[in-house]
Amino acid sequence: MNQKQLKLLLQMVAERKISIDDAVLKFKKAPFEDLFFARPDHHRALRQGIPEVIYGAGKTSGQIIKITQSILENGENNILITRLDSENARIITQTLPLKYFETAKIGIIGDIPSPNGKGKILIATGGTTDIPAAEEAAVTAEFFGNEVQRLYDVGVAGIHRLFASLDDIMSANVIIAVAGMEGALASVIGGIANCPVIALPTSIGYGASFGGIAALLSMLNSCASGVGVVNIDNGFGAGFLASKINHLGGS
Amino acid sequence: MNQKQLKLLLQMVAERKISIDDAVLKFKKAPFEDLFFARPDHHRALRQGIPEVIYGAGKTSGQIIKITQSILENGENNILITRLDSENARIITQTLPLKYFETAKIGIIGDIPSPNGKGKILIATGGTTDIPAAEEAAVTAEFFGNEVQRLYDVGVAGIHRLFASLDDIMSANVIIAVAGMEGALASVIGGIANCPVIALPTSIGYGASFGGIAALLSMLNSCASGVGVVNIDNGFGAGFLASKINHLGGS
Amino acid sequence: MNQKQLKLLLQMVAERKISIDDAVLKFKKAPFEDLFFARPDHHRALRQGIPEVIYGAGKTSGQIIKITQSILENGENNILITRLDSENARIITQTLPLKYFETAKIGIIGDIPSPNGKGKILIATGGTTDIPAAEEAAVTAEFFGNEVQRLYDVGVAGIHRLFASLDDIMSANVIIAVAGMEGALASVIGGIANCPVIALPTSIGYGASFGGIAALLSMLNSCASGVGVVNIDNGFGAGFLASKINHLGGS
Amino acid sequence: MNQKQLKLLLQMVAERKISIDDAVLKFKKAPFEDLFFARPDHHRALRQGIPEVIYGAGKTSGQIIKITQSILENGENNILITRLDSENARIITQTLPLKYFETAKIGIIGDIPSPNGKGKILIATGGTTDIPAAEEAAVTAEFFGNEVQRLYDVGVAGIHRLFASLDDIMSANVIIAVAGMEGALASVIGGIANCPVIALPTSIGYGASFGGIAALLSMLNSCASGVGVVNIDNGFGAGFLASKINHLGGS
Amino acid sequence: MNQKQLKLLLQMVAERKISIDDAVLKFKKAPFEDLFFARPDHHRALRQGIPEVIYGAGKTSGQIIKITQSILENGENNILITRLDSENARIITQTLPLKYFETAKIGIIGDIPSPNGKGKILIATGGTTDIPAAEEAAVTAEFFGNEVQRLYDVGVAGIHRLFASLDDIMSANVIIAVAGMEGALASVIGGIANCPVIALPTSIGYGASFGGIAALLSMLNSCASGVGVVNIDNGFGAGFLASKINHLGGS
Amino acid sequence: MNQKQLKLLLQMVAERKISIDDAVLKFKKAPFEDLFFARPDHHRALRQGIPEVIYGAGKTSGQIIKITQSILENGENNILITRLDSENARIITQTLPLKYFETAKIGIIGDIPSPNGKGKILIATGGTTDIPAAEEAAVTAEFFGNEVQRLYDVGVAGIHRLFASLDDIMSANVIIAVAGMEGALASVIGGIANCPVIALPTSIGYGASFGGIAALLSMLNSCASGVGVVNIDNGFGAGFLASKINHLGGS
Amino acid sequence: MNQKQLKLLLQMVAERKISIDDAVLKFKKAPFEDLFFARPDHHRALRQGIPEVIYGAGKTSGQIIKITQSILENGENNILITRLDSENARIITQTLPLKYFETAKIGIIGDIPSPNGKGKILIATGGTTDIPAAEEAAVTAEFFGNEVQRLYDVGVAGIHRLFASLDDIMSANVIIAVAGMEGALASVIGGIANCPVIALPTSIGYGASFGGIAALLSMLNSCASGVGVVNIDNGFGAGFLASKINHLGGS
Amino acid sequence: MNQKQLKLLLQMVAERKISIDDAVLKFKKAPFEDLFFARPDHHRALRQGIPEVIYGAGKTSGQIIKITQSILENGENNILITRLDSENARIITQTLPLKYFETAKIGIIGDIPSPNGKGKILIATGGTTDIPAAEEAAVTAEFFGNEVQRLYDVGVAGIHRLFASLDDIMSANVIIAVAGMEGALASVIGGIANCPVIALPTSIGYGASFGGIAALLSMLNSCASGVGVVNIDNGFGAGFLASKINHLGGS
Repeated sequence: MNQKQLKLLLQMVAERKISIDDAVLKFKKAPFEDLFFARPDHHRALRQGIPEVIYGAGKTSGQIIKITQSILENGENNILITRLDSENARIITQTLPLKYFETAKIGIIGDIPSPNGKGKILIATGGTTDIPAAEEAAVTAEFFGNEVQRLYDVGVAGIHRLFASLDDIMSANVIIAVAGMEGALASVIGGIANCPVIALPTSIGYGASFGGIAALLSMLNSCASGVGVVNIDNGFGAGFLASKINHLGGS
Repeated sequence: MNQKQLKLLLQMVAERKISIDDAVLKFKKAPFEDLFFARPDHHRALRQGIPEVIYGAGKTSGQIIKITQSILENGENNILITRLDSENARIITQTLPLKYFETAKIGIIGDIPSPNGKGKILIATGGTTDIPAAEEAAVTAEFFGNEVQRLYDVGVAGIHRLFASLDDIMSANVIIAVAGMEGALASVIGGIANCPVIALPTSIGYGASFGGIAALLSMLNSCASGVGVVNIDNGFGAGFLASKINHLGGS
Repeated sequence: MNQKQLKLLLQMVAERKISIDDAVLKFKKAPFEDLFFARPDHHRALRQGIPEVIYGAGKTSGQIIKITQSILENGENNILITRLDSENARIITQTLPLKYFETAKIGIIGDIPSPNGKGKILIATGGTTDIPAAEEAAVTAEFFGNEVQRLYDVGVAGIHRLFASLDDIMSANVIIAVAGMEGALASVIGGIANCPVIALPTSIGYGASFGGIAALLSMLNSCASGVGVVNIDNGFGAGFLASKINHLGGS
Repeated sequence: MNQKQLKLLLQMVAERKISIDDAVLKFKKAPFEDLFFARPDHHRALRQGIPEVIYGAGKTSGQIIKITQSILENGENNILITRLDSENARIITQTLPLKYFETAKIGIIGDIPSPNGKGKILIATGGTTDIPAAEEAAVTAEFFGNEVQRLYDVGVAGIHRLFASLDDIMSANVIIAVAGMEGALASVIGGIANCPVIALPTSIGYGASFGGIAALLSMLNSCASGVGVVNIDNGFGAGFLASKINHLGGS
Repeated sequence: MNQKQLKLLLQMVAERKISIDDAVLKFKKAPFEDLFFARPDHHRALRQGIPEVIYGAGKTSGQIIKITQSILENGENNILITRLDSENARIITQTLPLKYFETAKIGIIGDIPSPNGKGKILIATGGTTDIPAAEEAAVTAEFFGNEVQRLYDVGVAGIHRLFASLDDIMSANVIIAVAGMEGALASVIGGIANCPVIALPTSIGYGASFGGIAALLSMLNSCASGVGVVNIDNGFGAGFLASKINHLGGS
Repeated sequence: MNQKQLKLLLQMVAERKISIDDAVLKFKKAPFEDLFFARPDHHRALRQGIPEVIYGAGKTSGQIIKITQSILENGENNILITRLDSENARIITQTLPLKYFETAKIGIIGDIPSPNGKGKILIATGGTTDIPAAEEAAVTAEFFGNEVQRLYDVGVAGIHRLFASLDDIMSANVIIAVAGMEGALASVIGGIANCPVIALPTSIGYGASFGGIAALLSMLNSCASGVGVVNIDNGFGAGFLASKINHLGGS
Repeated sequence: MNQKQLKLLLQMVAERKISIDDAVLKFKKAPFEDLFFARPDHHRALRQGIPEVIYGAGKTSGQIIKITQSILENGENNILITRLDSENARIITQTLPLKYFETAKIGIIGDIPSPNGKGKILIATGGTTDIPAAEEAAVTAEFFGNEVQRLYDVGVAGIHRLFASLDDIMSANVIIAVAGMEGALASVIGGIANCPVIALPTSIGYGASFGGIAALLSMLNSCASGVGVVNIDNGFGAGFLASKINHLGGS
Repeated sequence: MNQKQLKLLLQMVAERKISIDDAVLKFKKAPFEDLFFARPDHHRALRQGIPEVIYGAGKTSGQIIKITQSILENGENNILITRLDSENARIITQTLPLKYFETAKIGIIGDIPSPNGKGKILIATGGTTDIPAAEEAAVTAEFFGNEVQRLYDVGVAGIHRLFASLDDIMSANVIIAVAGMEGALASVIGGIANCPVIALPTSIGYGASFGGIAALLSMLNSCASGVGVVNIDNGFGAGFLASKINHLGGS
């Protein structure tokens, strides 16, 4: 309930157009409705139709279809479904106009918008096996209106490949450094780049990589400043945070 | 060696104003100077005098004075010294014009500039014991030219205090959520705010908080999207990353 | 052997109705029978038929049927079988009058009694994926005679949904807060509610959630007081403890 | 603002005794005051003066005195200060009427009330070294109006001592089982008692006890049902939760 | 090479019945042959045919048959095969006279000897799910010539069942306490029994039992003295160590 | 109450020499006295005066003196005090006839008895820094009536020193293998010796030894069979278990 | 760009055979081309055709064939494919001349060269289950031109077998000690051998071996000096490092 | 007893210059002396006087002096004492001709020899705080006869400094990469250098660096091949292994 709505309601009370009991009822839920509408997501939702996100892991195709249809009925036209395996995607496609990104394991209803962020999001990976997590980040970022540049397989074992793309690193607005194993890529990029770097550890590796813990710890302890870390394999989180940063102050 | 300098040198070669052997000598160290000068920090350094940072932990006051003087001699006037204990600060002050921020354990040579970022950085803590880490972030952010708003002791145990500042949360450009113990503050703020949130876990707590691990894991697993995490008690890193984000595309 | 029985036996000895050797034999096992009968469970069992619990995980349908029949033969009519997968449930149903709760993975022989606790047990989950653990707690609590109110998918990422149910939180006698990922729900509810809160961490999450450890640590470190934690995914334990609390001093 | 106050205010608006603008002003801060007053703690506070709790660890005696005086000025007369070392206690006593419980490391301003809970809280420890954590729980429970019975040094290494107190275990309303090392006490008591058991792991032990982790894990995995666990050495949390349970439905 | 053999060899040198070079050759490998023959296992092997042990996990039925036949050819008639799954056992039985113990996952070639230890080995488990590990210990102990008494499902959740067997506990020569979850059984038995107790943690449990770590830590930290711990699920090791203890000084 | 006493009491009841009410009173506490006296320790205690053990860590000299005097008054003349630092030992000696073993950090009241075990306990250490833990085991074993042979600094880095004592290894009745760092000594000795081996990991080491965890894990995973492990630095436990094994069936 | 190339280019500038803008372009990428060509791998590549390595895990046979063909087209004739399962190997063989080493899970295109290292690489394993990791190391080392001697199943549980090969240990130039479980083999060999020892922990074991962590920690804490450790199961890394050491100063 | 000595002894037996009983006596201890002398260290010792190493941590100055004097009496003139604090060094210097290296915490008796290895050992650190561990490695390597080149503070946060020393990296025979925090230096150097790289993790860092674990894991998971890792802060081990590699095949 904003100030204008409040004044209106009090006016109605003063003019006895609404009973005091009904007004009390309206106030009772107001704090939480306030909270609800205060959320910019929803302001944006009202203005422009905000994309919805469904976490697909552990859901059946039937459940996903049901949730999706309920969202569509509420007037949201753009839906991102993460962690969607190809079999579920195949089934959903029979019912809904789903675009499926196999490597990213993402399904999309609606369109990927034209980029409207402030700059370019660069996504770099240490190896080819890190690409699925990187693609989850990339498609997420594109879905939220960002220009994405992919720079894959530039890990520190062959560091000359990374330096061959120095211009791209220097001209990015946000960088997502994706790496498993020892995760050194985030530190190296963090030591070169001047823009915010999001470190995305992946579960790639074996033995003492402990499913991504080695990369995660490495990234948290990066000697390069200006690095923020997301959860292991959390490509969506990295892409979404990058998009938030890239749209700051954006029209 | 930037492009202009390179062109100049080649011009001199073309015009035979410099011998080929002397030019070779000049190039010999160039690749790394190139790399060096390619770093935007240094572009900025050339334009406006970039602040230097010294990590004070484990250094004697004598060592810090020596490093500081060497930086000053190189023409840098603004220096930030982190993890500086009060005793070392007291000694350094006898030799150098140090401003000391006791709670933040930060010493500064030179001036804190007027804010020139895009918006406001909000720094919220769960409890009063998280304030030292928060202040390290706050003074760092101020030192790098940001307006900082402090919102301390608004942890989820008394969540109404957090909601009393909903306007501040909604109007921030970047938020740093500082919390120890279970670190839930980052998730709650991340669930409300629309701007990028940097989660700063602190080592506050006991027993199974394991010196900040509980808060760190909590923040990495935040169900709220758009949260990037820094190392435990890494106030400097949080402040520096927030500043980077807040200056993106800044004039 | 209670005091009355002891007196009776000594009387028989005094009256030489029983030989000393036979009396010795009766005493020999008495200490442990004492211990045995001293257990209130069994006092209750004598009065009202106490429900038995079978942990179904790792047992074949054959083994479960055999144990169940042995219990039924001992006169117990109400049996709760936890961690019972649907295939085993299907087979058991062919032999025994089993009611199966698919989501809770619980099978029940006998009836769910009318609630006879002191108040209402509220069970809240952070997300929809936490529902199986929540249902294990819910059906357990109902089986032990409690009124259960479900409040699902009210996690801190959309905290307004939680606050929309503030009345339910305030009127509960015991609350079970069920959450995976960062487990912040327990702290938020613990910070609002005035009744005892049982925190039930779930293994939902990925990466650095470590199969529920992040949520577990978060809950153990809750800055909100009055929170007791059970093992990861231990819905039965949470429901049983809630029931114990809800029946304290109950008639 | 409670419902009664709200009605009153609307009445005044309806009767034009207050201008709409002034009413708006009054509402502006209302949502959070609402939330604030909705918290039962504060309802209780209004009725009977609720005790305040200060976490003393890491605070100077000066800071504690200042916080305490501010609370006293707000009309709260009973204050519990936890983790208060004897030196700080000594200094505070010179300024404030502090009662100090050395073993519990608790200081109290005001009086310990007569017990007004439903039953007795039994606090059992495995060894004598667990007594400090147990006393923190005991004094906390007493401060919040509970009758506390202490049963110390009854660990499973000499299990006959525990059974010698079977009557006390059977007649308790809530039990706090305090143990370090392998923490088996909680399971043994949980296997005997019929009331809710709060397991309080302590950091007592060496080697692979890992500062209480062994006891904590042991308690979380207790094969006895109806056990809720609090953080390592969190005597306050155990005592507070026990008090909450013991006052449920209490007059 | 024992002293007698050495004298013999030197005699032959003195009597020039062997060349010095051949004698040198004989000495060259002597230290390790010494070591080899010094091993009592082999002394025993010479005297009585020592049982051989094959670790079956990760071996194909073909590999096991081949190893077994090679041992049989060397004159060993008694072979114990651990971690042998039922499918492999079925195949091996077609070729070799294998006795298979399904629960213990042990196969035996030859006979289980009459007990020849000093006393009885008691094997107690906390629950029925711990029985496989217990049976691996039991069959191993029987195979090495021990009388084994089984006492299953006497965990601390129903501690009266354990005390009902106090006589068995008191009369055992060695006890193996087998438990998963919180592993408290070892401490309780260790607190009662006067003989050596071997604690065998099992991987039974879920959540924070971490595949047996909780039980392992619990047992290592047992407040009861005289407890030695073996690896998680290492029934063979427990049975073998118990047998060693039970045969000390045995004829 | 043993069987003889029970018969006597029943006889008195049968002969009406005692009233039934008085008999009831006598029985009331009997179950636990039974349990108490059923413990062989106490049977032994009645026969021969059993040594008592005090864990000295974290106790003041005053507390230790008080406990000791209380034990002495109960007629126990032999007391072992572990983890006793030299300063406390110095103070206690002024009041009580304490013998202090500096390296073992053990104090003894009374006499070390002549060895009455079945054989010799060999205690081997990997390095000289493991000696304190070894001495705690050695003095404990001696105090409980065992012949102890020390074999120090025979770690696998200089494995020839270990083999130089092959005879001692072969003739021991029980061996305690004491090692920090990688703890390989237990495996090597376990691979040679035929008697039970108790592995005692020490906290000696640095970096990834994690205060003894590396040695502990190494010992638990020993490829040599017949090894039981005690807690890190638990010399007392190792010595006590070795003594139990060495006295099995002893006269 | 080497000095000669630089002089040539400057000459061309001086002689105006190339425009300054074109020269600038050539310089722009020079630093990284420099870095690229400075890598000895590539110098060697130019001279003799360096073997390429493909990490086969998680790649389809189709992907591997494509990468392999692309390498072959670039003129590299020798390719090592690690972590290649037998099914993928079978498919690839239909297209490419692959030699498959089943135990090592390695496929090779091209020939294994004659050994050209300085000495012999000895590879020792603790058990037969460690052989796959050992073979990965062995085939890798052979592929890079080393003579490899295999010494399998010489673990410390039967240490006499290891000593029977003392000559081989003494004459090796590099030793790879491969062991799971407690990993003591590395320490024992490190204590005997005088050459560099590479410790290769394997994931063999169960319970508290934690998938190789016990062996890894054991090896890192080896009391024997001169031991370098690689990741768990990283046979390729061990073989490659051994080859590097064995080729030092090699022609 | 070497082969020559053995032949001599047998000759004497054959020639009856020694009785068989006396020869038996001589042989009795021979097996282990054999083993002893088979160790190449000791062959070297016979030829050239091998340096001895004392681990100084946890030893008093008195103990160190005593051990040192005993070694000197045995004819060894060169002794390296690691982990020697400055106070102990000061005291020892009063008795023995000790040279003390403060940063390395190493004391040396005797002379540092002229380098006699095959090449140069390069020691690189990520930061200035890693220098103590690096110096322990450097002085150790120098003490064992190696030319050492120091390259400090070239961490990846300022990677241009590392590349400025590309020539040194390319010309080293062995490289020790010393780094704390995220330890990325080892991967970057491993990706550039062609010689063996020893990774030495340090305990430098805070928060989630966990005393060097982050760096250790990072190094074990290095995507660069040919990297062997030593324990955290184990400068001696790194220096000693580097020396072994650098002396392979050395004259």
